[in-house]
Amino acid sequence: MCGIVGVYNHKESSTLAYLCLYALQHRGQEGGGIVSFDGKKTHLIKEHGLISDIFSKKEKLASLKGSIAIGHNRYSTHGENLYNNIQPLQFKFQGADISIAHNGNLVNLKKIRERLEKKGTIFQTTSDTEYFIHLFSHAHGKTIEKKFLSAFQQLEGSFSVIIMYNDKLIIARDKYGIRPLCCGRINDSLIFASETCALDLIGAQYEREIKPGEMLVIDKSGEHSYKIASANPKHCIFEYVYFSRPDSKIFGDSVDKIRRKLGKNLAIEKPTKGADRVISVPDSSNTTAIGYSQRSDARFEIGLIRNHYIGRSFIEPQQQLRDFSVKIKFNTIEGVLTNRKIVIVDDSIVRGTTLKKLIRIIKKTNPKEVHVRIGSPPVKYPCFYGMDFPSKEELIANSKSVEEIRKYIDADSLEFLTIGGLLDSVSLPRDCFCTACFSGKYIEPIEKEDK
Amino acid sequence: MCGIVGVYNHKESSTLAYLCLYALQHRGQEGGGIVSFDGKKTHLIKEHGLISDIFSKKEKLASLKGSIAIGHNRYSTHGENLYNNIQPLQFKFQGADISIAHNGNLVNLKKIRERLEKKGTIFQTTSDTEYFIHLFSHAHGKTIEKKFLSAFQQLEGSFSVIIMYNDKLIIARDKYGIRPLCCGRINDSLIFASETCALDLIGAQYEREIKPGEMLVIDKSGEHSYKIASANPKHCIFEYVYFSRPDSKIFGDSVDKIRRKLGKNLAIEKPTKGADRVISVPDSSNTTAIGYSQRSDARFEIGLIRNHYIGRSFIEPQQQLRDFSVKIKFNTIEGVLTNRKIVIVDDSIVRGTTLKKLIRIIKKTNPKEVHVRIGSPPVKYPCFYGMDFPSKEELIANSKSVEEIRKYIDADSLEFLTIGGLLDSVSLPRDCFCTACFSGKYIEPIEKEDK
Amino acid sequence: MCGIVGVYNHKESSTLAYLCLYALQHRGQEGGGIVSFDGKKTHLIKEHGLISDIFSKKEKLASLKGSIAIGHNRYSTHGENLYNNIQPLQFKFQGADISIAHNGNLVNLKKIRERLEKKGTIFQTTSDTEYFIHLFSHAHGKTIEKKFLSAFQQLEGSFSVIIMYNDKLIIARDKYGIRPLCCGRINDSLIFASETCALDLIGAQYEREIKPGEMLVIDKSGEHSYKIASANPKHCIFEYVYFSRPDSKIFGDSVDKIRRKLGKNLAIEKPTKGADRVISVPDSSNTTAIGYSQRSDARFEIGLIRNHYIGRSFIEPQQQLRDFSVKIKFNTIEGVLTNRKIVIVDDSIVRGTTLKKLIRIIKKTNPKEVHVRIGSPPVKYPCFYGMDFPSKEELIANSKSVEEIRKYIDADSLEFLTIGGLLDSVSLPRDCFCTACFSGKYIEPIEKEDK
Amino acid sequence: MCGIVGVYNHKESSTLAYLCLYALQHRGQEGGGIVSFDGKKTHLIKEHGLISDIFSKKEKLASLKGSIAIGHNRYSTHGENLYNNIQPLQFKFQGADISIAHNGNLVNLKKIRERLEKKGTIFQTTSDTEYFIHLFSHAHGKTIEKKFLSAFQQLEGSFSVIIMYNDKLIIARDKYGIRPLCCGRINDSLIFASETCALDLIGAQYEREIKPGEMLVIDKSGEHSYKIASANPKHCIFEYVYFSRPDSKIFGDSVDKIRRKLGKNLAIEKPTKGADRVISVPDSSNTTAIGYSQRSDARFEIGLIRNHYIGRSFIEPQQQLRDFSVKIKFNTIEGVLTNRKIVIVDDSIVRGTTLKKLIRIIKKTNPKEVHVRIGSPPVKYPCFYGMDFPSKEELIANSKSVEEIRKYIDADSLEFLTIGGLLDSVSLPRDCFCTACFSGKYIEPIEKEDK
Repeated sequence: MCGIVGVYNHKESSTLAYLCLYALQHRGQEGGGIVSFDGKKTHLIKEHGLISDIFSKKEKLASLKGSIAIGHNRYSTHGENLYNNIQPLQFKFQGADISIAHNGNLVNLKKIRERLEKKGTIFQTTSDTEYFIHLFSHAHGKTIEKKFLSAFQQLEGSFSVIIMYNDKLIIARDKYGIRPLCCGRINDSLIFASETCALDLIGAQYEREIKPGEMLVIDKSGEHSYKIASANPKHCIFEYVYFSRPDSKIFGDSVDKIRRKLGKNLAIEKPTKGADRVISVPDSSNTTAIGYSQRSDARFEIGLIRNHYIGRSFIEPQQQLRDFSVKIKFNTIEGVLTNRKIVIVDDSIVRGTTLKKLIRIIKKTNPKEVHVRIGSPPVKYPCFYGMDFPSKEELIANSKSVEEIRKYIDADSLEFLTIGGLLDSVSLPRDCFCTACFSGKYIEPIEKEDK
Repeated sequence: MCGIVGVYNHKESSTLAYLCLYALQHRGQEGGGIVSFDGKKTHLIKEHGLISDIFSKKEKLASLKGSIAIGHNRYSTHGENLYNNIQPLQFKFQGADISIAHNGNLVNLKKIRERLEKKGTIFQTTSDTEYFIHLFSHAHGKTIEKKFLSAFQQLEGSFSVIIMYNDKLIIARDKYGIRPLCCGRINDSLIFASETCALDLIGAQYEREIKPGEMLVIDKSGEHSYKIASANPKHCIFEYVYFSRPDSKIFGDSVDKIRRKLGKNLAIEKPTKGADRVISVPDSSNTTAIGYSQRSDARFEIGLIRNHYIGRSFIEPQQQLRDFSVKIKFNTIEGVLTNRKIVIVDDSIVRGTTLKKLIRIIKKTNPKEVHVRIGSPPVKYPCFYGMDFPSKEELIANSKSVEEIRKYIDADSLEFLTIGGLLDSVSLPRDCFCTACFSGKYIEPIEKEDK
Repeated sequence: MCGIVGVYNHKESSTLAYLCLYALQHRGQEGGGIVSFDGKKTHLIKEHGLISDIFSKKEKLASLKGSIAIGHNRYSTHGENLYNNIQPLQFKFQGADISIAHNGNLVNLKKIRERLEKKGTIFQTTSDTEYFIHLFSHAHGKTIEKKFLSAFQQLEGSFSVIIMYNDKLIIARDKYGIRPLCCGRINDSLIFASETCALDLIGAQYEREIKPGEMLVIDKSGEHSYKIASANPKHCIFEYVYFSRPDSKIFGDSVDKIRRKLGKNLAIEKPTKGADRVISVPDSSNTTAIGYSQRSDARFEIGLIRNHYIGRSFIEPQQQLRDFSVKIKFNTIEGVLTNRKIVIVDDSIVRGTTLKKLIRIIKKTNPKEVHVRIGSPPVKYPCFYGMDFPSKEELIANSKSVEEIRKYIDADSLEFLTIGGLLDSVSLPRDCFCTACFSGKYIEPIEKEDK
Repeated sequence: MCGIVGVYNHKESSTLAYLCLYALQHRGQEGGGIVSFDGKKTHLIKEHGLISDIFSKKEKLASLKGSIAIGHNRYSTHGENLYNNIQPLQFKFQGADISIAHNGNLVNLKKIRERLEKKGTIFQTTSDTEYFIHLFSHAHGKTIEKKFLSAFQQLEGSFSVIIMYNDKLIIARDKYGIRPLCCGRINDSLIFASETCALDLIGAQYEREIKPGEMLVIDKSGEHSYKIASANPKHCIFEYVYFSRPDSKIFGDSVDKIRRKLGKNLAIEKPTKGADRVISVPDSSNTTAIGYSQRSDARFEIGLIRNHYIGRSFIEPQQQLRDFSVKIKFNTIEGVLTNRKIVIVDDSIVRGTTLKKLIRIIKKTNPKEVHVRIGSPPVKYPCFYGMDFPSKEELIANSKSVEEIRKYIDADSLEFLTIGGLLDSVSLPRDCFCTACFSGKYIEPIEKEDK
């Protein structure tokens, strides 16, 4: 995952980048950074932590001078949590400063690495993002544009990237358009961001999506669009299910609208007879749960209260509190739950551990029955395109049947939306989406060494 | 406002206090602290900031040794933001360490201060909490209990206090029971906290409320209850309307239940004909809005998304973004709002500035009409019992009529719940509540110099 | 120990106070603070750490507005290291803000405390400094001046204090003048400080010492001097031996001059025949060693290099390095020491542990002989007037003879300056000094309970 | 400048590296870092600031696991103060982790850069240290050793480098041996460090210098020495004059011994008739001043006291104090200076600004005369081998005659040691030293673009 942003031609470019990153904070909370170019020099600040903490002091942001800036929010992956991997990454080549912010995951790197190292290339991070720059510097084209085009064409996997090459901005998206990337405008300034909620915060007007397979170069001579490659789009459907913010528009549609549709289709496919109340797991499944209740006789209620002050880590008593990790986030509303037949609507099940604990604390309020309905199919397969699922072994649906999961979480019933129901909820044609995490049908075969 | 906690006879008393303060964080975010007693010495840590930040390191909490601890969350008042005012306050008297955590506001201090200063008393804070201790030390009683009883009897105003006097815990509540204070139990350990949500987090069993006018002393010899004074209770009804957490039980009733009732009564008193959607201002008016929708033809929807990453302060571009302060917190869901007749349900109107900006950003989505319904009467009068309203002049309803407020916030209609409707929503008899902020009927006359 | 400062009538009073405290940093490094008065309000910042760290940001110092300021450096005592004990202490009394900075130690507190607590007085710190204020507030005098005079008259022990009472500055010194306190001037501004090196840094002109037993009150009406009590002075001679900075003038004489005299008298009393080199333990005994070499045939050399980057604590390997604590501070110069007969001149021996380790690392360079000469008599008795010696048991000379100490530190010879030689080195009459730590002759009998 | 360290085969390698860096702190205070290898992974911590601050917490050091570690202290250059430039730098190549710590300055980079960039090489820092690694990865040799040898042979300028290549340690020094680098031993562990004072602190036994033009490779198979190139040594004589610690042995001689010799030769060449006192500018010219006094009739005294608490920056009053920057560091001892004919001995004059201010504050004590003697010739030329002098224009002796400098600093006389006197003070033959900063005779011609 990750969130990216680019600002071109705005005298407060870094402040706008910072606000956009703030709006995209849900896409990555491990670290973040902004780099700006003031016509002569680049200025970079990147750190571990939340954007509002990294830039808590005005002077820091003020030091990022210039009218061009790009920024990045990094997702907390299970892998290496190194300072050097925090983006934007920065490089020097033939007198130019190159900075890059990347959302996605590249998949055919092994052979490329061998080829590059044979030529003496030194790698400085453990991040796949570095490959864009080495392929660029080794490309044969005569112009910067041609060299970047060549780099993008050699790389497989998902990428929405924003590159600052001195005073040029280069924006590109893989040919399948796996991750979202949009463009907005404030007067003569252009804003690029992972999701439209970033544009909304700074009052930018939404213009369009960057097209799958498009490379856009912005400089003093204007905007120039290049084609990297053509393909049928394969948007990540999990962005709709869980990852994007409900107030964003991605892949041409409002996330909120699709999520409500998921809830409605779930209610039609998997109704719960005689249920008294529908509750969500706030806030991620709120809209799906409301959608469910609208096609159900049971009314929507708030049965769980979410605590929003949570910091990074929490100190637990030594004689550990049962289900502490879920209690620190959620508390139950007894009056809503006790003696009622409850439907909990959640967006997805990955490991199942949180849901198991949630049901346990809900049962302490003595509901009559607890039924679980999930607004997406079981997640059975890993994602190689950037969605940070746990390993195959930790995906509960990879090894357990629905009935086994039900027993594990101790629900009275458990039902998932079907892949058909999922694809019925979106507006674009069914074949425009990657459903590999649910179906195992990957866009292209993934070589063993790149898994 | 403020949140308080006390733990008696638990070997991890400070960790429990910390978790309770975390659950009570909504009652005060300016600063907080915990003091423990290990049989010989007291250990105190108090700082500015959120509890999870103050105790982000295990060692800090581990240094607060002992089986007795009390803690405090301080609300950000407009007054002085001094380290010395962060509680628990600590004092020394005749070889004993006295610590105190106080929620409430005392009102008859001027004469007491004059009297004490004539006797040579030195004050060290600008906090009214210090008076408890000076009155105690000057009281004539022979026992600690009698001296504290005397102190409590001399003080007017609201107080829910927890005092640690070496290995004694003294818990007291003013005779009107203005602020909440409850007691729970984990095996042989007793837990005292402002709201029951704190007990829930640590798995303590709710026992009872501390009674209005009760002083409870806990020590090795057991629990001893004393009567400070008798009076008809006057609970703060604004705790139900806004301040307490919805998953808490206070004044004998679930906040969530009362808040839903406020929404239902509001819908009955002030319906909105032909409305399409009811939306809340998340999260404070969620339950009230759901209650409203349940007595209305318009269905409940999520029209505003709240951003939960907000830090203390935010850097804005120099050419300021319109309505930035509200946009940084909320974004609109166009699909829910556009071309619809919307009812926004909010819990209360204090200054009206946030609501005005919210309506402005909602109108950008082109709704058909925007109607505002408020789950409480207009706040017209200041509170002298601890609710931190702005000055009289800043209370919009103090000087403006409902129609003037409607114009100010630019809504198509604006209606408030009546005082009658408010009192119909609670379970206790109508005369058990203080409604001064709505009605101007203060419990007792407030002397000019103490205002 | 401790360093204190007061600035009256300077528009940058807090910046001057900060620089003075910086110059007095050697008098206390545990914590420090400054409080200023801007005509209406007091502003206080105090923290643990060095002055340059506490005020590393300009804004912090800038927030201490006003033309009057007092400040304090706290010495790291073995006792309680609590925030509340960091000075200036602040109190409120009858609408006034009182702040106090104190250098010294009071000795007759037990009975006073009993008397005050009977009257209901609450203590808030474990510091003796608080007594000044409680005695003031309980005094019978009609004016502030008379009340403070009464307080000073009741207290025994050592005190150099600076008090800010709104826009008044009250400066006082105990009747024996045990600790130093001087006054300087920049145009119409008055500066008070523990040592003259503080005046030098800010370019203030030295005016005079505050007299023993003098209370000076400065306000808009001018400077008013009062007599607390009369006595023969008893200055702390250890200030000359070790504590004060060599570039200061205290008790009417330059510390550097006295210290060179100590070295010369030591060389006369306790010569070292046939020695090749005289070395100091930098930097504290530099001047004494130079003085010694000037009355000796052996020439002065730098045999030990001091490391000046030392922070608070140091991480040692688990298989601990021998004499690490001394090696982290000092390294030997082989070329100076090897095969020579060395005289190490040190200012005093308290515990003897550092000297023992120093000699061990010096011996690694294979000197012919190592002779130790100490510029003061053996420290045998505790100080009750503010010099922070370890407990009696830890004073090596309290239980060991000179020969036993010599064996312990493993020197070829060890000699101390006599009390006679010490008193011959100062300019004032012999009976003007307290030598209790050497002689056991305390100024007044110390009651057991106050020891 | 900079300090470097390497530890091979010690189970607490990072703790030893940390202590060595602490001892070498004078070689660079802008930032520092340590990287260790635990047999599988490398662990790196590097930050701005002093070593004792960077590693103030035990856990940080403990996280640097493994028996091999290298470390670096970075000097505050006028250039870019970027995180990425703090060393050790880290790279990845063919599955290996390469880390490098470098002291020195490379001079023939322009053409190498062009050649490398043509091959697609991307640079990630603005540090010349990166070139070692790119030349290594592009070298044709079949073994790691041959490839590094090739890299070292291609680079001109000064380098003392320590490289960690997984579990191999590669140590190299340029053929002229411009910067120092020594080797010590603790049992079976080898320690490499810029100066011997680092070995002393950790109790390592000095073994030898790394030879000019030597590349040493240490791995499981033992120690292997390779020859990079042969040349007559050209040690930096300024290391003796000022930069190295007096308790270190470099280029085969004790710094302290050479520095005393400089003082003696200065006294012989440039005596001061009738002078009363010789004083140093502590601590850098202490030994030189003592040497001077030993060949002079005037006796050595401490006339300036240095304040050792100085932090990074200092807040000055707005109406600035004259000579503040020097007063914050030094105070005068009136008793030593007043009415005397003073000789100030300093080690060198670079800009001359500090000395000018020092003389001004010394003159406030009313000395009879102030004579300045400098223990090295005038610094007239920039250093391209790593000594961080200011630009040519800022070197006062570049444009001013000795008489003009004397007038500028306002001394009664000013004399420098001659180049002959300088070279007479060292033990090695005269042609074994680079004296370019004094003589303008560079070791090799420096190409314009590399200046």
